[in-house]
Amino acid sequence: MSVNENSIISADNTRLATSSRRQFLVGSAGTVAGLGILSLAPSAYAESGHAIFQKEFMAWKQADALIAHSDFTAETRRDAIGQGVVTPSDRLFVRNNLPAPSQSIVADPDRWEVSIEGVNNPQTMTVGELKKLGVESVTSVLQCSGNGRAFFPHGPSGSPWETGAAGCVVWTGVPLREVVRVTGGVLPNMNYITGTGGEELPPGIDPKTIMVERSVPTRALATAILAWDMNDEPLSVTHGGPLRLVVPGYYGVNNVKYVKRVAFTEAQSEANIQVSGYRVRDIGMGGAADQPSMWEMNVKSWVTTPLDSVATGRNMIYGVAFGGVNALDRIEVSTDGGQRWQRARFLGPDLGPYAWRPFVYETDLGSGDHLVVTRATDNMGNTQPRDRTENHRGYGHNGWFDHGVTLTAS
Amino acid sequence: MSVNENSIISADNTRLATSSRRQFLVGSAGTVAGLGILSLAPSAYAESGHAIFQKEFMAWKQADALIAHSDFTAETRRDAIGQGVVTPSDRLFVRNNLPAPSQSIVADPDRWEVSIEGVNNPQTMTVGELKKLGVESVTSVLQCSGNGRAFFPHGPSGSPWETGAAGCVVWTGVPLREVVRVTGGVLPNMNYITGTGGEELPPGIDPKTIMVERSVPTRALATAILAWDMNDEPLSVTHGGPLRLVVPGYYGVNNVKYVKRVAFTEAQSEANIQVSGYRVRDIGMGGAADQPSMWEMNVKSWVTTPLDSVATGRNMIYGVAFGGVNALDRIEVSTDGGQRWQRARFLGPDLGPYAWRPFVYETDLGSGDHLVVTRATDNMGNTQPRDRTENHRGYGHNGWFDHGVTLTAS
Repeated sequence: MSVNENSIISADNTRLATSSRRQFLVGSAGTVAGLGILSLAPSAYAESGHAIFQKEFMAWKQADALIAHSDFTAETRRDAIGQGVVTPSDRLFVRNNLPAPSQSIVADPDRWEVSIEGVNNPQTMTVGELKKLGVESVTSVLQCSGNGRAFFPHGPSGSPWETGAAGCVVWTGVPLREVVRVTGGVLPNMNYITGTGGEELPPGIDPKTIMVERSVPTRALATAILAWDMNDEPLSVTHGGPLRLVVPGYYGVNNVKYVKRVAFTEAQSEANIQVSGYRVRDIGMGGAADQPSMWEMNVKSWVTTPLDSVATGRNMIYGVAFGGVNALDRIEVSTDGGQRWQRARFLGPDLGPYAWRPFVYETDLGSGDHLVVTRATDNMGNTQPRDRTENHRGYGHNGWFDHGVTLTAS
Repeated sequence: MSVNENSIISADNTRLATSSRRQFLVGSAGTVAGLGILSLAPSAYAESGHAIFQKEFMAWKQADALIAHSDFTAETRRDAIGQGVVTPSDRLFVRNNLPAPSQSIVADPDRWEVSIEGVNNPQTMTVGELKKLGVESVTSVLQCSGNGRAFFPHGPSGSPWETGAAGCVVWTGVPLREVVRVTGGVLPNMNYITGTGGEELPPGIDPKTIMVERSVPTRALATAILAWDMNDEPLSVTHGGPLRLVVPGYYGVNNVKYVKRVAFTEAQSEANIQVSGYRVRDIGMGGAADQPSMWEMNVKSWVTTPLDSVATGRNMIYGVAFGGVNALDRIEVSTDGGQRWQRARFLGPDLGPYAWRPFVYETDLGSGDHLVVTRATDNMGNTQPRDRTENHRGYGHNGWFDHGVTLTAS
């Protein structure tokens, strides 16, 4: 993993060697000098159990439901997603591109400031002020661009996510369009919404190489919000509090944490995370600005339970499905590896186009192995493909075959 | 509070005197001999802080969000409800009619047995078997019959609930009608669904005087479920796990915890909790079977935040509203004690007819006091009345005036 593409902390090849070192780093968030010399075998986090869940950043998480990949990275176990629409916060995956700011930034969330630029009357507003502008609630899938990376055989660098770098949460905040309204409207020719994270950057490194600053097309103004609550609780530092730019239907990286600046800009950010990071390209190629950026999510689904042995006879197969930037139309399940498909039934309420929908498939399974695969279709007619699209960094995997599970009935 | 009307444990006049005694009782759930001699001043729970939250039954609860009324009774603080549709389990109110069974009953929830009677092929089924019959998810308001009792000036016996004996949760389980289907259908002339709780009853007391057995009209078969999950987690003992009879839109008491028997019956249960308990009658009268039973909930709403001082100028007033057994149509807010009303806006997704809907009302408040009241209307045209209906036990209060809050703007 290259420094210009992801964080130098959560990168799999730059893990931290000792717990005292980790302590130091967490304790002085933002201080990353010298990290380049640290490295650890990929299995170290697995071997050390859940040590990272003793750090403040992760301590409130349900360790049993998560698999740690680094000090700032953990995915939800496939069978810990549950069957609900909303993923409980303490089971939600975590992914940070830089060490998180100090917990002190959420001590009085209403004081956090965000500057609004690229509008007719640019200004800096506090969260307290934003809270009086308007409020909306949107339920949306939060998913890392690399969710499913573990299924790529070429072993892309980055966290080896299987299915667990995704969850569905409720965001509450002010619609960005309300903020635009009171700041006089977007200036002409501003093609992008550019959000800048409030992480403290280490000295001696060109900020562009590590800063978290992402641009999304201005069309996202229709749905973007500046969120202060997640799942009806004040947004934690772990998930970007006190204020996060939420772009429903877009991959996680575009939902900038601790957002300190929202600018409408003609061009995309010049930060590496935008220019060359999160770009889809052939295996072996470097990232570049002319390659597709990880913006809108695609249609996807997977089984959450059961995952291995079952009893013969009647079985209830549960999973989740979502349409990404489009609403979901249907979900089909096959118990013979994709030869015959049947519609499954959605479970529980529809929380809107950006939410996922739990589903259940009731079936009788005879003795033996059954390859169970699932295939969602969004309301634009996009159906999950059978196979992944091979790409260097292992992004955007929604192929149904790799996400299948073999159930052994006896 | 009379023994025949509510529990002998959670009744306000039979509180437990010492912590060692409490420990004993919790440690040996079901053993209630000798309780009649115990009593404590009504304020003891407030004075002792959150001691009850150190017991296993309540230890997982968010003590700061709750107000304890007894060892088995706590309400959600008015400003801790939040603005979400679903009430987090650890903030949800607790009310038990008897000491809860041991935690061991949820160690292997699939082994819990429930007998199905009053059908053509009566049988006993395990939760594991029920899970293969079918599954549905329903979001519904859970509310104690006495929610709002504290607003009755005659001081009815029972927990002095204000607004916090209510929450909105997601139940997952098998539709009761599926269970009926596989057991051959309901026998003729069965007018009631009678659920029996699995509490161990103390020796030496006529079971009918204390057992939790409730009957609801068979029309509830259309929506009732046998639930094993609440908010996407296995149902805790605190809330009736491993299996609870959930009757959406009906007051809490009808949602029988640790349900061990579901019978379709010609007549209502002969347990006191049905015959004379939870009956609406004039002040001073005893309970009797010819009085209305606390079944279907009525339309209701209240402000959750802010509750006292605010800044002058723009304010966002949040609350919750629900239609009880009917879906909600609209919510109106008045900031002048009910002279002028304005429609408020629902916030977030509609989770179905039995869920509540958070709402927000944006208003400018000048310096001084403002009496803010809210008035919901269901889709059958029922609107909350101004005043409570006086009744002996303080049940079913949905008058908007008492639920108002005075906001002082400065």
